[in-house]
Amino acid sequence: MNNNKKISLGLFGFGCVGQGLYDVLNMSQGLQATIEKICVRDKTKKRRLDANRFTFDKNDILKRKDLDVVVELISDTNEALEIVSTAMKNGVNVVSASKEMLAKNFFQLFKLQQENNVSLIYEGSVGGSIPILRNLEEYYDNELLQSVRAILNGTCNYILTRMELEGKDYGEILKDAQSNSFAEADPWLDVSGCDAKYKILLIAVHAFGLLLKPEQILNLGIQNICYEDILYAKEKGLRIKLLTRAEKLGDKYRVYVMPHFIDKSSELFNVLYEYNAVEVEGAFSCKQLFTGKGAGSHPTGSAVLSDISALTYNYRYGYKKLKKLLNGNSTAPDSAKLLDSDFNIKVYVRFSNKSEIEKLEIVSIEEEYKSAKNNYIIAIVKFKSLFHFCGNHDSKVFICEV
Amino acid sequence: MNNNKKISLGLFGFGCVGQGLYDVLNMSQGLQATIEKICVRDKTKKRRLDANRFTFDKNDILKRKDLDVVVELISDTNEALEIVSTAMKNGVNVVSASKEMLAKNFFQLFKLQQENNVSLIYEGSVGGSIPILRNLEEYYDNELLQSVRAILNGTCNYILTRMELEGKDYGEILKDAQSNSFAEADPWLDVSGCDAKYKILLIAVHAFGLLLKPEQILNLGIQNICYEDILYAKEKGLRIKLLTRAEKLGDKYRVYVMPHFIDKSSELFNVLYEYNAVEVEGAFSCKQLFTGKGAGSHPTGSAVLSDISALTYNYRYGYKKLKKLLNGNSTAPDSAKLLDSDFNIKVYVRFSNKSEIEKLEIVSIEEEYKSAKNNYIIAIVKFKSLFHFCGNHDSKVFICEV
Repeated sequence: MNNNKKISLGLFGFGCVGQGLYDVLNMSQGLQATIEKICVRDKTKKRRLDANRFTFDKNDILKRKDLDVVVELISDTNEALEIVSTAMKNGVNVVSASKEMLAKNFFQLFKLQQENNVSLIYEGSVGGSIPILRNLEEYYDNELLQSVRAILNGTCNYILTRMELEGKDYGEILKDAQSNSFAEADPWLDVSGCDAKYKILLIAVHAFGLLLKPEQILNLGIQNICYEDILYAKEKGLRIKLLTRAEKLGDKYRVYVMPHFIDKSSELFNVLYEYNAVEVEGAFSCKQLFTGKGAGSHPTGSAVLSDISALTYNYRYGYKKLKKLLNGNSTAPDSAKLLDSDFNIKVYVRFSNKSEIEKLEIVSIEEEYKSAKNNYIIAIVKFKSLFHFCGNHDSKVFICEV
Repeated sequence: MNNNKKISLGLFGFGCVGQGLYDVLNMSQGLQATIEKICVRDKTKKRRLDANRFTFDKNDILKRKDLDVVVELISDTNEALEIVSTAMKNGVNVVSASKEMLAKNFFQLFKLQQENNVSLIYEGSVGGSIPILRNLEEYYDNELLQSVRAILNGTCNYILTRMELEGKDYGEILKDAQSNSFAEADPWLDVSGCDAKYKILLIAVHAFGLLLKPEQILNLGIQNICYEDILYAKEKGLRIKLLTRAEKLGDKYRVYVMPHFIDKSSELFNVLYEYNAVEVEGAFSCKQLFTGKGAGSHPTGSAVLSDISALTYNYRYGYKKLKKLLNGNSTAPDSAKLLDSDFNIKVYVRFSNKSEIEKLEIVSIEEEYKSAKNNYIIAIVKFKSLFHFCGNHDSKVFICEV
């Protein structure tokens, strides 16, 4: 492929991002790319394009020999994996934005790229329109990276911003966000921090060469937040943000997702609504911040388009740091050994009664507040014990790093 | 060259950035690069490395056949051009951070790359550690870019920040900045907006494919600012920032450097001291902000290192937008035709007596203030007439876009 050639695309999915890509592509000047066929699932849905643009059979795309790129933008993780894998085995380059599929199957997908000599790129899967993966891979290649701290979930940031600015409770804002398409009908993936976890897993690959499994990464979300928590922060001049962190400490790494109190001096303080931000800290470049819309049809569509464009000059992620850690081995290294989870951390914990926090290993309590409605403690706790609250649908406890 | 090979570098200049590169390179893990020889000018200066690392004869580097990359980090613009041109003619890839040299000779250097099939990259020349040129070139390749608004001169931003926060006048802060190495002994290039102009010229190449000459770009600086101007802004909740802009309006472009009043709602408001920021606005990705240290030994050194690293995988700027505008022609197109300078603009103009602003073509005056010490007007003026104040050492007028 070269930049002057017309590129033929096969597209899977025509939801929010798929339609965004369609628009962006239509308006774009530089790239001669055509969507030859769009594979969708729902046969009954009314669509804005002619019926002959669509197919319901994935083989109508996967078995064609004349396509340059398969673009996978569907929500079904298993189906996405099969599509992406098949396309790569057929020697076709792939652009994907399915973070869950990518995060859960990363090593397998990495190997498929090597074995089939194809490129799989996925800038649209992390940080919406913010160019972060390629920057981490290329620009910070030889930089001694120390940490990446990011706001990566637009839904959570939107809810937190509106709760604070409008003085309303979680349930009310969530409902409103759902009716405005800022939250999914089932919001769990976003509000539990799961979505952000998949994204930091991909960031950790490109920033540090780490190959983690989703279950190794702690994610505490905002699903149990209430207005009292926002108010507590507000009174202290702080804001609560769902932060996603990956940092290097000596030879080990700390990678997790957790609400944080952020103060005014941080550039993350003013990242509002659906905006995302990524703060990269290197030994030499110091702190750098990238902000931009973290989600949405056109922003994410434009990230997908930039991937398609990169394929015109045969771009591939170099995976330089990952390859260094692999050191020629073809089996996945146990990156868990590189993860530090044996440390103490200071948290704000709000709960109704003590039985709810039985499993929290408290080292020391710095503050304790009790009332008829709410109790909270500020405590130093063992980080590991927070896993009891991770992905736990029953827990009503809200935990926030201080 | 490939990433596993040891890379041999010839380095010109061992000042602030050169030493920064040396440090960054020594600490870096990923890149196997060695500085084989360093060419410097001053034979009497004491240096931190062994004398045998240095040479005073440029041919000791330029005539060697075993070097992979020439890194040019000197201050003499003519000398820099000769070094960079000679290296390219010898078929050697070059990394440079000399924005003035690059901006003044851009088309010639562009052609030398094509003719000799070599790469010249210069991320360190714009925005210090912020990865902006490669992002504009690659990531915003097919994005309908609308504007780039940036704080690109660390010295000016440092002076403006300290004037406001410490309530002191320009002369005092400038003097202090000079003694702290935040300003040069001769600060003109920075404070006049000239340095920022060279940078926006390079940005305009990669963002829009524009090929401008420095003299076509208006630069008004902060050399005539006084504390009253800062105070005027402060009372209105505004800050003065030296902004560098390149934006597309229809088929034309506006490109200039001028102080601006910035309000709190702008993300540029909180960019303080020596930090730089680049705000990129695209039709689809909306506003994106990149911030980071805009100058300094290690930040700029790390940008230079990232260029060296990019050369290990044979990276070249694609100049896609420029090539599209060139349309196969080998002569420089008259980009001046694409520049819009025939528009009205609202400015704050502070002066001592009216004769100083005779050449300003005023369309209408919105406010007028007179006192024994200072006079200012807020007026709509013809943009073109501002060129009378550009690079004018005699003028004492301070002009700021409202």
